[in-house]
Amino acid sequence: MSPPALHVPPDAVLQALDYGSVIVFALTGALVASRAQLDVVGFIFIACLTAVGGGTLRDVMLDREVFWIGDPLVLAFAALSAILVFFGAHRLESRYRVLLWLDACALAIAVPAGVAAAGAMGMAWPVVLVMGMATGCMGGLMRDVVCNEVPLVLKQGELYVTAAFAGTVAAVLTGVLGGSSDLGLLACAMATFALRAGSISFGWRLPVYKPRPPQVPKR
Amino acid sequence: MSPPALHVPPDAVLQALDYGSVIVFALTGALVASRAQLDVVGFIFIACLTAVGGGTLRDVMLDREVFWIGDPLVLAFAALSAILVFFGAHRLESRYRVLLWLDACALAIAVPAGVAAAGAMGMAWPVVLVMGMATGCMGGLMRDVVCNEVPLVLKQGELYVTAAFAGTVAAVLTGVLGGSSDLGLLACAMATFALRAGSISFGWRLPVYKPRPPQVPKR
Amino acid sequence: MSPPALHVPPDAVLQALDYGSVIVFALTGALVASRAQLDVVGFIFIACLTAVGGGTLRDVMLDREVFWIGDPLVLAFAALSAILVFFGAHRLESRYRVLLWLDACALAIAVPAGVAAAGAMGMAWPVVLVMGMATGCMGGLMRDVVCNEVPLVLKQGELYVTAAFAGTVAAVLTGVLGGSSDLGLLACAMATFALRAGSISFGWRLPVYKPRPPQVPKR
Repeated sequence: MSPPALHVPPDAVLQALDYGSVIVFALTGALVASRAQLDVVGFIFIACLTAVGGGTLRDVMLDREVFWIGDPLVLAFAALSAILVFFGAHRLESRYRVLLWLDACALAIAVPAGVAAAGAMGMAWPVVLVMGMATGCMGGLMRDVVCNEVPLVLKQGELYVTAAFAGTVAAVLTGVLGGSSDLGLLACAMATFALRAGSISFGWRLPVYKPRPPQVPKR
Repeated sequence: MSPPALHVPPDAVLQALDYGSVIVFALTGALVASRAQLDVVGFIFIACLTAVGGGTLRDVMLDREVFWIGDPLVLAFAALSAILVFFGAHRLESRYRVLLWLDACALAIAVPAGVAAAGAMGMAWPVVLVMGMATGCMGGLMRDVVCNEVPLVLKQGELYVTAAFAGTVAAVLTGVLGGSSDLGLLACAMATFALRAGSISFGWRLPVYKPRPPQVPKR
Repeated sequence: MSPPALHVPPDAVLQALDYGSVIVFALTGALVASRAQLDVVGFIFIACLTAVGGGTLRDVMLDREVFWIGDPLVLAFAALSAILVFFGAHRLESRYRVLLWLDACALAIAVPAGVAAAGAMGMAWPVVLVMGMATGCMGGLMRDVVCNEVPLVLKQGELYVTAAFAGTVAAVLTGVLGGSSDLGLLACAMATFALRAGSISFGWRLPVYKPRPPQVPKR
């Protein structure tokens, strides 16, 4: 398994992806906090957990400096997003619908953020793949586990983990085919978002596990 | 965001805080284990998870040596606390009440423990703030998630995360105003405990999020 | 607490244990995914989480390179196991029974894997003990928490954490008595499996906590 190293993305791209995913994930965290009727500090807590959870796990596993320790501005972005939702969420028609779509956007930004970070360290492609999926999925998973929601990751037959997986594969393939790292990250974001959006809008899905395939109906 | 560095606390203070929070959090973990009717090893497991969970997360994020690896005595304290509860908890009138108050004490020791560790490494104040809150809140959160209790962190409108937040702010402000690190940690512990105790005893709380503020009642 | 260092196990033994526990834990993860009726990517996700969760936590706490980053083949093993279960699980009579027994095997491989890793770094025995238990128990715990199953770790009065604990004690004692590290790891695996199997087959258990011991029945 030789690592077809991704071209190293410039730091600015990685930082922009981290900022973007932090803000959008923070909005989703705050929306879940609104469903749990927390106070404003609770909003900020859940927003920060969601926003930095996946990236923190990525950085700890890669033994990089945790991204928000090097750049605490990230925390301010997450906190401001939470406050915005605290005072503004009642204007939304359907908070759950907005939550779903924001989460899809956050996923489509966070997966490339994970891919970029692992790629910048010259990791082998299976590690790049896992880091993309971990960064994308784990923040939302922590949010849902802590807030006692059914994890989106686990919703039957929705393309959630699959969208993240497809995104990482798109990034790795772009690298293999000689594309630049920026192109790879763009392909990653688009593949992730396209699959997730298709799943939300049109019900795209993979066949789920059925305990016993085609059976004669019981009489 | 220049870091108004906290004065570095002596190691002895940090160690005392770590020991204290470990013992008190272990007691709370064992009390939750008693509610789940585990055996004595289960008590020790949950007690250790609760006792070292927050501090371990703090140390991993700060890339310090995990505190109980450098000083395994900590584990003995946690185990002994668990055994004490296993054989003694039936003497308590209301285990839930004791649990609440012990948890408040543990929070008021663990938050300064997190602040002290981050301060000793010269971290910027937003990082100090997060480390205080993570050390204080995450052990209890892991306990509640694993044992399937409603996380105290999420109880509607109680001042839990808020108390931790106020404590960290008190520590940072003391530093800004030129106070010694010991004074800062004392202020942190007192602010945390005061708010949490006020919330338990007198029902102090912040306004919670309401889906839609004042509405005309439906007819 | 002077560390009666375990003899350092050769890398090959540690690697074999890591591979073994990854494969068997991945099977259990996929079986839980089948109970949640996920699609094939969901199977792989939960299988990987279960398979590498405990070992990743161990490596992060010990500040070693995370084992599957150094050797991504591990991830392929986990993914293949998941795919196998996705297409084969419907042939099983009772998936829960198979899950229980596979989980017992995984525990009996993962606990020595944790012991070996900590022993190889010359850790003090209490740390060896904790690493054995964390590596053995935490992957399955993450699986159960994420999939909303009652954690096996918490099942009333079953010997689960206790089996892991006994295994680590067996390893440490073998070291103290002058046995080789291989013998210690074998003793660890056997003690863990024996207790867990006895618990599943014969209902072995420790007395659980009772709110109030012998009482006069209410009339």
